[in-house]
Amino acid sequence: MSDDLHKTPRLYTEQPLQADLQVELEKAQSHYLGNVMRLKPGDQVRLFNGQDGEWLCTVCALSKRGGSLQAERQTRTQSALADIHYYFAPLKHARLDYVVQKASELGATLLQPVRTDRTNVARVKLERMRANAIEAAEQCNLLSVPEVCETVRLGALLDAWDPNRHLIFCDEAAEVASPLAVLEALLPGPAAVLIGPEGGFSPAERQLLLSSQFVTAISLGPRVMRADTAGTAALALVQSVLGDWH
Amino acid sequence: MSDDLHKTPRLYTEQPLQADLQVELEKAQSHYLGNVMRLKPGDQVRLFNGQDGEWLCTVCALSKRGGSLQAERQTRTQSALADIHYYFAPLKHARLDYVVQKASELGATLLQPVRTDRTNVARVKLERMRANAIEAAEQCNLLSVPEVCETVRLGALLDAWDPNRHLIFCDEAAEVASPLAVLEALLPGPAAVLIGPEGGFSPAERQLLLSSQFVTAISLGPRVMRADTAGTAALALVQSVLGDWH
Repeated sequence: MSDDLHKTPRLYTEQPLQADLQVELEKAQSHYLGNVMRLKPGDQVRLFNGQDGEWLCTVCALSKRGGSLQAERQTRTQSALADIHYYFAPLKHARLDYVVQKASELGATLLQPVRTDRTNVARVKLERMRANAIEAAEQCNLLSVPEVCETVRLGALLDAWDPNRHLIFCDEAAEVASPLAVLEALLPGPAAVLIGPEGGFSPAERQLLLSSQFVTAISLGPRVMRADTAGTAALALVQSVLGDWH
Repeated sequence: MSDDLHKTPRLYTEQPLQADLQVELEKAQSHYLGNVMRLKPGDQVRLFNGQDGEWLCTVCALSKRGGSLQAERQTRTQSALADIHYYFAPLKHARLDYVVQKASELGATLLQPVRTDRTNVARVKLERMRANAIEAAEQCNLLSVPEVCETVRLGALLDAWDPNRHLIFCDEAAEVASPLAVLEALLPGPAAVLIGPEGGFSPAERQLLLSSQFVTAISLGPRVMRADTAGTAALALVQSVLGDWH
């Protein structure tokens, strides 16, 4: 990617992208391009929609009410992410934003809050989660935005689990053992990372997890980490062993 | 560690810790224990100093001007961290706080900002970095606080490098290859992670790094990550292969 293209503003759209097709902008996008980035008709923008790769587009019009671009040429073809889901006990405000951004940067394909016995966050704003996922995808050159799902109870999540998907759970109470050795022993396939609440899983939840065939417990070393740190670390290990980091 | 002890406030001190020894508190610590945690004489606090392990202490006195504790018994013996340094192009304010916290949680023993060609942060507040490292150590049950060092220029850092320490550098321009395979090929020994600025290293800096015997370049996958995310991910991989995560 040329340095020039690298600096071209990049936005997510839900509209189809193909040569010469006109793309309508949302109000907020038009405001961003016109008033924040100071673009004018004729300037260039990159768009992606999770299906058609990335396209270099030309600004046709920008106004208070919206705007439009014209797709010129495809700059990247669509590529699939490794199939890795991220399930996490919801955190509050800024920490939640952070977790969503990091999981998106690390290539998680699905983000879902999980209610646990010790979860103490009343409700999660899905729209805010989605906005953070889109922003991360725009900034980090992702070609798709992770799916953001409604909060689910841990029991319901496990009851409906696809047994072909590895559920990797960071077990603070596990004997310290090599997380890589454990991950490398798994058959390649779809995976998911599950991160518990700050207080950890309850003994009953831990037993339920450890007794499930599709669950793999890993230890992230001898130190206690905040839940958001553990999530980033676990996703890095899973991408390295089961994902697309090679 | 019993749940009870787990909930006992935990503070870092620079004073020696041994049975029956009295420990003077700083003003801020006394305020925290007395006014925030609402402790009274006779209540318990955990202290660590990076040398004598962790000690359960009893509050003797708390006042506006300070306070004192008495060390009762050692609850954890001192253990050494894996020898992993963390060098990073400084980021601004909240992102810098975050990087320092994460690197501390992940067990880095030394934190040092590195000035690069594309670094655009004027100066780094070492005292703020140190406060964040101490807070992370207190919250995450570390037995020591990482050393925080003055900003150094990349050239000077490399000129003075101990050739026995692996310098692991996250090379965005590297061909995508398995970071684990690269790390697993290294001889065990002291290591360091180097994270560049948002703009990446300059071509000259990259050449300098790649031409150094002690430097190992790794790729963190096909996606662009923010510098703070890359740092957390790289430290997780290095702890897993060369550190104490097994």
